[in-house]
Amino acid sequence: MTLYPVIMAGGSGTRFWPLSRKQRPKQFLPLTGDKPLIVHAVENIAPLASPEQTFVVCGKVHAPVVRELLPRLPESNVLVEPIARNTAPCIGLAAAAIAARDPEGILLVLPSDHHIGAPDRFRAALARAAEAAKDGMLVTIGIKPSRPETGYGYVQRGAVLREGVLPIHAVQRFVEKPDLTTAQGYLASGDYLWNAGIFVFRADRILEELRRHLPETQEPLAQISAALGRGEADAVLAEQFPRMPAISIDYGVMERASGIAVVPADFGWSDVGSFTALPEVRAVDEGGNVAGGETLLVDVKDSVVLADGRPIAVVGVEGLVVVDAGDAILVCPKERAQDVRRIVDELGRRGLQRLL
Amino acid sequence: MTLYPVIMAGGSGTRFWPLSRKQRPKQFLPLTGDKPLIVHAVENIAPLASPEQTFVVCGKVHAPVVRELLPRLPESNVLVEPIARNTAPCIGLAAAAIAARDPEGILLVLPSDHHIGAPDRFRAALARAAEAAKDGMLVTIGIKPSRPETGYGYVQRGAVLREGVLPIHAVQRFVEKPDLTTAQGYLASGDYLWNAGIFVFRADRILEELRRHLPETQEPLAQISAALGRGEADAVLAEQFPRMPAISIDYGVMERASGIAVVPADFGWSDVGSFTALPEVRAVDEGGNVAGGETLLVDVKDSVVLADGRPIAVVGVEGLVVVDAGDAILVCPKERAQDVRRIVDELGRRGLQRLL
Repeated sequence: MTLYPVIMAGGSGTRFWPLSRKQRPKQFLPLTGDKPLIVHAVENIAPLASPEQTFVVCGKVHAPVVRELLPRLPESNVLVEPIARNTAPCIGLAAAAIAARDPEGILLVLPSDHHIGAPDRFRAALARAAEAAKDGMLVTIGIKPSRPETGYGYVQRGAVLREGVLPIHAVQRFVEKPDLTTAQGYLASGDYLWNAGIFVFRADRILEELRRHLPETQEPLAQISAALGRGEADAVLAEQFPRMPAISIDYGVMERASGIAVVPADFGWSDVGSFTALPEVRAVDEGGNVAGGETLLVDVKDSVVLADGRPIAVVGVEGLVVVDAGDAILVCPKERAQDVRRIVDELGRRGLQRLL
Repeated sequence: MTLYPVIMAGGSGTRFWPLSRKQRPKQFLPLTGDKPLIVHAVENIAPLASPEQTFVVCGKVHAPVVRELLPRLPESNVLVEPIARNTAPCIGLAAAAIAARDPEGILLVLPSDHHIGAPDRFRAALARAAEAAKDGMLVTIGIKPSRPETGYGYVQRGAVLREGVLPIHAVQRFVEKPDLTTAQGYLASGDYLWNAGIFVFRADRILEELRRHLPETQEPLAQISAALGRGEADAVLAEQFPRMPAISIDYGVMERASGIAVVPADFGWSDVGSFTALPEVRAVDEGGNVAGGETLLVDVKDSVVLADGRPIAVVGVEGLVVVDAGDAILVCPKERAQDVRRIVDELGRRGLQRLL
């Protein structure tokens, strides 16, 4: 049983502006304080798989930075999407590449931009999921919820399929982002888990399910599979990849397939969704502040202050985000962190492309 | 009757950190949006006096920037204090220099770091004061108060000495910064005026009063006077100036002398005391914000946002000060603007001299 981590690094996103840019989305930022999130993502699974078994899927513009940040990965393990088509084509591409080498190889499909607080428990959950995947199951990891979060999708667990320290459950159903009352019910029931976008399945099995539920992917993936590792691979990818539907693996396959399993787990997961999430993933001072770079905080509480090169002095505020990216500065209360995209929109209107 | 403006530019101060530094105190900053305050101070009185009649008194370290900002002033009109000794020695030095040329010349003693909203009314008040000064009176300009300010000293006006569009009153007394109740009483009475540190008197008269009330100044000023314009002037200044007591002209002379007069006036005066005062002296947007440089403000009210080179984006705040000085950034609610000095203290403790 060989494991093939597939780190999905195709994400863009504006919620970490001014740190994040089109050229430098969230997964390439050292948001937890030291290394870029994608480097942590690879390090977290390193004990399970060699660099030769580890794949990254990313956009063309980001391939150079991926290679720079992850120099131990073979160049051919960096799979480049000609355009972004959501996760189903991304996973199809990775499965095709891995199946060419090892049809029964087990994919560990992992986000590149999340934080794992307890990597050992994370790996234990993946290893447990891989056991079920080996037997042909499509498996997801479900995060035990700690709050009635309305920003995530949920997985309802059903009957226990395999007992154990980490039991494997059947998936009853996938559910969309709930309203607060529903989320509170989910939390109280104990049967609902956060869908963190972590999937474990054999290469041949996911290709089979893609053919079944998304038949439009069959021909492009076959062509890509035949071309991979040959001279014309780039041209074939450029032609075939965009023919696949832009759809997530959740909608496209997992919610339609039967016999999906889930491993409930708890390993200090955070999706690092915005500056507001940073206190979950980094050290805070006695005032509850996350401070990076050279900062001077006087009477400051529950704030995020990230300096870059020059000092930031803050006096007498609570719950404020202050971020210097070197070429732009953001000041925003935590509860308005979602509105940072309005700044990004406005920058676009003003033609300040260099800041996007 | 010849007028000699004396711009006092010896002030230091930390309330505009990070814009203000030891090397670049408030009077050298373009706080009103275009030119440095000291340039406005000189331009405001230009219709009353030629550059040859206009003097600046400043510290050694600031003399080069004064000469650079005010190139039309003769070099010998920039009087350099070897050390800061408050306003009485400063004015004594200027009076000695002017008396050597024109003993009955009239000094217009003016701050370098205030804002004058209506320069024509300002000049009218000075011209009126000069009429009384010509006859030997020591005159101050009293600002009609618009609020019960507890941060200023006041002048209580007495009997009218000279009728007119701008009547001249006897000064009943100078009073210290009052508490709020007292300040409210002052405002209601109509007899109290803000002491803005603007004085008008003949050179020979102020030297006479300095001799009378601060006799320790007599010998140093006599020595300085004899040396001025000669080769050894710097050496004599360095030796004699520090012998004078460090005392303000208010305490040292005006409060002790008899026969002081005041011209009540109203010319849009602001002492530009902190970032909080900027809306008094610069254009505000429809949200009541003062914005300088490239700023993006979304749902921002009553704030001061000063960018320098790189954009500052602010979302969803009220009454906040955000200032980028290029090498340091300050974020502080308006009501905590006085606490900026705590940042400056902390910088000193950390040994960050370059930022002081």
